[in-house]
Amino acid sequence: MQFWKRSHLCGDLRLADDSSRVTLSGWVRRRRDHGGVIFIDLCDRTGLTQVVFSPAASPEAHRTAQDLRSEFVVAIRGEVRSRPEGTVNPKLPTGEIEVFADGLQIINPSLTPPFPIEDEEDLQEEIRLRYRYLDLRRPSMLRNLHLRHRVTGRVRRILDEQGFWEIETPLLTKSTPEGARDYLVPSRVHPGKFYALPQSPQLFKQMLMVAGVDKYFQIARCLRDEDLRADRQPEHTQIDLEMSFVEPEDIFEVIEGMVGTLFSEFLGFEMARPLRRMTYAEAMLTYGSDKPDLRFGLKIREVGDIFRENEFRVIRQALDSGGVVRGLAVPGGAALSLKQLDDLTGFCQEAGAGGLLWILFKEGGALKSPMKKYLSEGEVAHLRELFDCSEGDCLMLIADQAPTAAEVLGRLRLKLAADLKLIPRDRFEFLWVVDFPLLAYNPEEKRFEAVHHPFTSPHPEDLELLKTDPGKVRSRAYDLVLNGTELGGGSIRIHREEVQEQVFALLNIKREEARSRFGFLLEALHYGAPPHGGIALGLDRLLMLMGGLSSIRDVITFPKTQKAICLTTGSPSEVSPRQLKDLHIGLTVPRGEEQP
Amino acid sequence: MQFWKRSHLCGDLRLADDSSRVTLSGWVRRRRDHGGVIFIDLCDRTGLTQVVFSPAASPEAHRTAQDLRSEFVVAIRGEVRSRPEGTVNPKLPTGEIEVFADGLQIINPSLTPPFPIEDEEDLQEEIRLRYRYLDLRRPSMLRNLHLRHRVTGRVRRILDEQGFWEIETPLLTKSTPEGARDYLVPSRVHPGKFYALPQSPQLFKQMLMVAGVDKYFQIARCLRDEDLRADRQPEHTQIDLEMSFVEPEDIFEVIEGMVGTLFSEFLGFEMARPLRRMTYAEAMLTYGSDKPDLRFGLKIREVGDIFRENEFRVIRQALDSGGVVRGLAVPGGAALSLKQLDDLTGFCQEAGAGGLLWILFKEGGALKSPMKKYLSEGEVAHLRELFDCSEGDCLMLIADQAPTAAEVLGRLRLKLAADLKLIPRDRFEFLWVVDFPLLAYNPEEKRFEAVHHPFTSPHPEDLELLKTDPGKVRSRAYDLVLNGTELGGGSIRIHREEVQEQVFALLNIKREEARSRFGFLLEALHYGAPPHGGIALGLDRLLMLMGGLSSIRDVITFPKTQKAICLTTGSPSEVSPRQLKDLHIGLTVPRGEEQP
Repeated sequence: MQFWKRSHLCGDLRLADDSSRVTLSGWVRRRRDHGGVIFIDLCDRTGLTQVVFSPAASPEAHRTAQDLRSEFVVAIRGEVRSRPEGTVNPKLPTGEIEVFADGLQIINPSLTPPFPIEDEEDLQEEIRLRYRYLDLRRPSMLRNLHLRHRVTGRVRRILDEQGFWEIETPLLTKSTPEGARDYLVPSRVHPGKFYALPQSPQLFKQMLMVAGVDKYFQIARCLRDEDLRADRQPEHTQIDLEMSFVEPEDIFEVIEGMVGTLFSEFLGFEMARPLRRMTYAEAMLTYGSDKPDLRFGLKIREVGDIFRENEFRVIRQALDSGGVVRGLAVPGGAALSLKQLDDLTGFCQEAGAGGLLWILFKEGGALKSPMKKYLSEGEVAHLRELFDCSEGDCLMLIADQAPTAAEVLGRLRLKLAADLKLIPRDRFEFLWVVDFPLLAYNPEEKRFEAVHHPFTSPHPEDLELLKTDPGKVRSRAYDLVLNGTELGGGSIRIHREEVQEQVFALLNIKREEARSRFGFLLEALHYGAPPHGGIALGLDRLLMLMGGLSSIRDVITFPKTQKAICLTTGSPSEVSPRQLKDLHIGLTVPRGEEQP
Repeated sequence: MQFWKRSHLCGDLRLADDSSRVTLSGWVRRRRDHGGVIFIDLCDRTGLTQVVFSPAASPEAHRTAQDLRSEFVVAIRGEVRSRPEGTVNPKLPTGEIEVFADGLQIINPSLTPPFPIEDEEDLQEEIRLRYRYLDLRRPSMLRNLHLRHRVTGRVRRILDEQGFWEIETPLLTKSTPEGARDYLVPSRVHPGKFYALPQSPQLFKQMLMVAGVDKYFQIARCLRDEDLRADRQPEHTQIDLEMSFVEPEDIFEVIEGMVGTLFSEFLGFEMARPLRRMTYAEAMLTYGSDKPDLRFGLKIREVGDIFRENEFRVIRQALDSGGVVRGLAVPGGAALSLKQLDDLTGFCQEAGAGGLLWILFKEGGALKSPMKKYLSEGEVAHLRELFDCSEGDCLMLIADQAPTAAEVLGRLRLKLAADLKLIPRDRFEFLWVVDFPLLAYNPEEKRFEAVHHPFTSPHPEDLELLKTDPGKVRSRAYDLVLNGTELGGGSIRIHREEVQEQVFALLNIKREEARSRFGFLLEALHYGAPPHGGIALGLDRLLMLMGGLSSIRDVITFPKTQKAICLTTGSPSEVSPRQLKDLHIGLTVPRGEEQP
């Protein structure tokens, strides 16, 4: 009719198709004019076929081919031929053939694109996002889109096979601010009222458990109006699931099975199951992080006991004020220069510590350390044994309050691993971090806050502590961590109303406030709520790690910038006064104050 | 740990499990105390098992069972036994067995629910939505959720197998009002600016085609701030797809294959393919509707030619002013009383006609009609032949301008079919309506509007008419219609920028306005846009029809009311002044003006 219908895709043809007549369509990637004969690379999402125009085959097609430029959309007709010896391209699946064209149809011309549609280009992200439809046309980006499609499809099948039902929960819902800010949507029909976009389907999935759904999942869109950091997006997607009549191990089994299958099928990586479980306490102590990267060592150890009698001022002060001394050993670290050690000390100070203590175990048994004269032989022996230090290594110590020591050493550990190139690529170290604290005290607001969220169940062994020492109560929350990145987290929820009210009270959420914000959930707990729990995995992060990519923006089709702008469409943008009037709102800033 | 883990689900057990020891958990649906022995129906989403507590088996369990009330969550342990003769329930998959419990654990008690969790109950929708988590627990609603899960899963697999990639498009996007109103989301980071929630992924999926994705789909959430009618929801879900290098027939093939598979696998209905195609012109003429219900006849015919010489005033006036005379025959309609005919006339007048003409063909050959004396024998013979009328039938005619005649007769046809019970149940009549007009003239605003949307391609044969007679231009838009309901629609899109600009000009969308609203799409068309087209099917409507339900709210988990309220969560609701301040907006109505 208007254009020739293709008989094959650009990645289809092989030597077996030799002499076939074919019609292809796609984008002209490159054109080479070899004195009378014109070659083009014709591309679509499946690959690339070399097409040859010679005046002998068709003077007309050859003439038209002279007008071809990059990214023209064309259809060609011709005959498949094996490539002459010496011109075979073994890197290309179609590299053994080419198509001799005797017909050419220009379906749509193209302006010269702002950047070549090639993988090798090191492009500015701003221009990529501005012309996202061209950026996505690059083979690597099409591959990312395809991976996302295949992974989500596989996730759905895995969960379906286990009896999970995918259920859509509303996008226009109620504002129940907790943690991040809600995006709000003014109601036109109800003046002065607002919907909120969901930060997660949390409350809905819990109601689904009350409804008896038993096993729910959703590849769910979540929106959070956060102050954006690198690799945060206003909207992200999570693999969200919830189950009834379960304990944490039931959730772990589902997730390990699912993630294991994905890594095996898509990456050929066989995950050892069951995954390691580590308590929050151990993770904080040994790795200074609740999402430890286990691809390398540099384990942190408590050494306060060794220094019980030590008189070095910094150590004495820390221990006497209830603090800790912890450290890690750096293999080969004795070679660090004073300048390097100074820089590391600066790093630790920026991270919140008073300073950094170091002990270099030089070749030949000599020690070098600012606290050298305070170190007894016994202490040194103990330290070397504990850290398994050899000559040539270095010990780094922080003496401070426990949370600061953990935080600083955690960061130092990551920095040293990066600086010293201790992180193996192509390795996947998963673990579950369990037994998070239920509550964290916010000294500024002088109140407890939920570490996970206010619906997380306290650890059954710690129920009594709720009344006596709430800060010590462990929760039934857990995180799945991969290579130092939190892939997701979840918890067993509170299913009994009296426990939920107790937790709200500890969080200083007043009865009335709780009713107005979460009343519907509290009410649901009255009517036969089963024990239930779940988890949400960040799909974008999972795909980023699976794809070996450095930014989640490479697996999101139309991402926003760190300033929450869509450079492709230019949103957010101004709207008409009429639209605002309809919504019963006005601006508290002058219109057009900020230009895009 | 805290509760006994179930060994089976409540719908699992059969006679073959006789004498097995099992642990079940679920909800107590009914409790019957038969003098010393207590029976309960224990339910979960898979079904129901009868559980028996006798003092003999366990005095303790029997004692606790006396406290059970409806919707308590419990776990029981016991032994499966075949039911005694005479107590087998053949309607129940588990009806041949019961479980003799010797252990009972009350996991969570329940208040008496506001309505019984049963299918037979004829409940007020308001209370169902208020306690949606209980409403969904009813077996029929769980079945609807399950159907939705299975259908969307099947749709995804069908499209995946054909090479479609599911791709998520943004929820926070740009306001490009066209048709319905956008829901807006104020930006906190960019004062005075707004995101819009997507009315459909239209612009994004077109950009994906420019990107070379070739075959895209998405089970997409769409939000429209419309004035709500019955069976409209602020948010709905569509099966959205788009393909490159296609013509309408390619889209039809995909959709017919998909819908055919769904109806065959889920309903055992074998759809005859290819589906019927009907032009918009024919549909409007013959059925007075662009979504004709083909489950019954009552076809409308043009009869102006027959009445060329007729002098009856109403007919004369219509024909002389360029109008039409059209009618339909009602089998057995001669039995209609004058009162009934008066009522039908009133109905037609309300629908916009001046009146209704009728001709009753009485038994014995007599005619009854207000225009009897103006009817020649030749006219009567022609009419009877055209409509294939027998004695006992009735002819109903409208003489008016063509659009009014179509509209009124279309509505009259549906009313007659309902009144006379001519609509067979359990029948599915699909068709494609094609060749919609591209533009419709809006006499109030004195401008053309897009019938489909402004990116719809004109019919290639009508390109010249764009300049000379735009109202006559057909588009390449199409609708899929089932039993008089529009299941969805789509079109081949404009892929060349000069055509897109021409259409914008006809729609009186100025160049500048077009650039600021759709500039990114116009720009994308510059860079090698392939020919492309697609369609979106309303998932909620499809499921409603597949489930034989009368409301889309029965297939939406947490629907809004017609006033766009979520009765479960109480959204929309007021938000704090702090939240508004953060968003740089104020209310133009007093706070709390409207109470929920």
